[in-house]
Amino acid sequence: MSPSTPAPLAFDPTDPVALTQALVRCASVTPTEGGALALLAAVLSAEGFSVERPVFSEPGMPDVENLYARIGSEGPVFVIAGHTDVVPPGDLAAWTHDPFAAEIEGGTLYGRGACDMKGGLAAMTSAAIRYRRENPDAPGSIAFLITGDEEGPAVNGTVKLLAWADARGERFDHCLLGEPTNPAAMSDMIKIGRRGSLTGKLTVQGVQGHVGYPHLAQNPIRGMVRLLAALDATPLDAGTEHFDPSNLEVTTLDVGNPATNVIPAQAKAVFNIRFNDLWTPQTLSAEIERRLCDAAGNAVRYEIVFEPTNAVAFLTQPGPFVTMVAEAVSAETGKRPALSTTGGTSDARFIKNYCPVVEYGVVGQTMHQIDERVATADLVTLERITHRLLATYFAAAQQA
Amino acid sequence: MSPSTPAPLAFDPTDPVALTQALVRCASVTPTEGGALALLAAVLSAEGFSVERPVFSEPGMPDVENLYARIGSEGPVFVIAGHTDVVPPGDLAAWTHDPFAAEIEGGTLYGRGACDMKGGLAAMTSAAIRYRRENPDAPGSIAFLITGDEEGPAVNGTVKLLAWADARGERFDHCLLGEPTNPAAMSDMIKIGRRGSLTGKLTVQGVQGHVGYPHLAQNPIRGMVRLLAALDATPLDAGTEHFDPSNLEVTTLDVGNPATNVIPAQAKAVFNIRFNDLWTPQTLSAEIERRLCDAAGNAVRYEIVFEPTNAVAFLTQPGPFVTMVAEAVSAETGKRPALSTTGGTSDARFIKNYCPVVEYGVVGQTMHQIDERVATADLVTLERITHRLLATYFAAAQQA
Ligand SMILES: [Zn+2]
Ligand SMILES: [Zn+2]
Repeated sequence: MSPSTPAPLAFDPTDPVALTQALVRCASVTPTEGGALALLAAVLSAEGFSVERPVFSEPGMPDVENLYARIGSEGPVFVIAGHTDVVPPGDLAAWTHDPFAAEIEGGTLYGRGACDMKGGLAAMTSAAIRYRRENPDAPGSIAFLITGDEEGPAVNGTVKLLAWADARGERFDHCLLGEPTNPAAMSDMIKIGRRGSLTGKLTVQGVQGHVGYPHLAQNPIRGMVRLLAALDATPLDAGTEHFDPSNLEVTTLDVGNPATNVIPAQAKAVFNIRFNDLWTPQTLSAEIERRLCDAAGNAVRYEIVFEPTNAVAFLTQPGPFVTMVAEAVSAETGKRPALSTTGGTSDARFIKNYCPVVEYGVVGQTMHQIDERVATADLVTLERITHRLLATYFAAAQQA
Repeated sequence: MSPSTPAPLAFDPTDPVALTQALVRCASVTPTEGGALALLAAVLSAEGFSVERPVFSEPGMPDVENLYARIGSEGPVFVIAGHTDVVPPGDLAAWTHDPFAAEIEGGTLYGRGACDMKGGLAAMTSAAIRYRRENPDAPGSIAFLITGDEEGPAVNGTVKLLAWADARGERFDHCLLGEPTNPAAMSDMIKIGRRGSLTGKLTVQGVQGHVGYPHLAQNPIRGMVRLLAALDATPLDAGTEHFDPSNLEVTTLDVGNPATNVIPAQAKAVFNIRFNDLWTPQTLSAEIERRLCDAAGNAVRYEIVFEPTNAVAFLTQPGPFVTMVAEAVSAETGKRPALSTTGGTSDARFIKNYCPVVEYGVVGQTMHQIDERVATADLVTLERITHRLLATYFAAAQQA
């Protein structure tokens, strides 16, 4: 429970714009709670939700606050998931509006987290409250899984919150994660899966020496160029029905040798692969190791270390739930959204281990940027889409 | 002239071991004079050389002291060239002997500069003094061109000293530069030329972005790998009669991107080419530009900047003077030295614009290293070789 009782709300929580403003005004830069979870706790408690505020810890990392709320005791359980933490605002002078003032100008609400993802979370919360106010005896349950650790290391967040809920016997049927999935307009895109992510660190060893005596040295940059060219020579795959081709990007390559007359001893590169459902981290790292080994032969001494990853590729198979989300979007926007698996990773990679998860939210164009913003009209649209989805979902449950 | 008159010498300057010790005990870490030039000035003045101590300046750089000495007023002028500055000793604790104590243990003299090149300079100075003492009426002249700026930027050193002497009407016929040319034994190698050196800085521009959205970004590392592979694909040449093949080494390659989910905006590489007499800096940079342009096509945006260089490839054609040096070496060591153009650059690249120059000195194995050292027997041998060379040289001059 929230440790202190906040003052009564000055707005109606079924207003998604007002609720977004209230959340943006909480400076919840990851991993700081900033009052955002306390606000949601107050709003949801007042509407009859039971609210829990578990705090998770990990040695060497800051404690992180989380929120679990639920209304209803029966299944099916429809989960709304999200995060209240935001990335730092960066250069404050570059913002045209105070990043934590939530000012509205010309129908646009400005502020850090406006689209990623306080706006989405607020609209869904407003919709859930309105739906429950209108349908106090609706079947099933609505639950909220909200973390303060998505933009940070994501260690004391959704992954632990899910395990915590599971240990308490909480079972979930379907989840809507409110990340900003739309590239440009509210009808653009829902996400039904995500590619996996695998990071490798490649070190090539050489023998340091003077450029005037190359036969006494061995340049590790020559070996590194050879290995990286080999990794890039053949595509990993051609993509699958719902996924783009897997893609490898070298993100950095560093030697740090200031002397132009010295052949360096070592070169280091880091690469990241976004991979589709043809691969697991195990099969993919084996393929990379095979390519490196073939290219190196006896000529290049190297070491490859893969970072542990929990970002596997996953797909929520198109079916009744995906169709229900897509139809709610098209009913309110007039256009059918694409079913996509593009982009980065999200907490959906954890949720999919417990129940089918679909991601949909506002337009994400300005996420993590200076002047992050959301159209107030889009917040209203998202509130309507979520409300329509809840109504359809629980009506179907009643009929089943 | 030396600003203060030093105390009388405690040793005979025709003893190359004692003179090396005295020079090593001057802590002349570049660009500090450390008393080394003052010592040589005192020694040479006492033997009847006229000595000048020009100091050269350059904005933003420390002033550097130099020494010019000459005995005799007629031609031919035989020049002994060298430097008294040394590289820093590095980790003092790693030395088994104080780097500025010039201790002798088991026939080995330890100290910074022992082989590069106080030992060589001392042995040649001892030989010149002994030769002049024995032949006070010898024809021709012996001159010394000694700088305190060889290990540093080499801007206020030999290059200016040569111009300064030239402006005073000094003309040189042949030069012996006392750098440590022998890999392992005194009979190994004289250097009759040096490869040139050209440094290029290559920048590849990309478009920064998220690894999850590679179509919105352009990875400069991919382009860099392509360009560097192209530079390395074909040898620059196969070498020439007196030179090894030209060789390119990438000395550093840096991106400095800490975020494994970000495609960086830019990658930078530096390479250095040691090139033979088939190339000038102009023809070589044009060839590199052609290769980069071909490899880049329209796909890679890059910029190449070559550092200005005065290190062109040069050869002192084998002929009577080279033969005279080689024969002095073989007469004293029993073996004919190789005529080589390998290794780094030296001040010979400046001297060759004024007169033919050959390099020969002690064994350079430990130059710039911890426990730099020279065999005292090698100092004696070098003194004898130089004495023999001077005798042969001026005898030939008398006959001509
Ligand atoms: Zn987010
Ligand atoms: Zn030297």
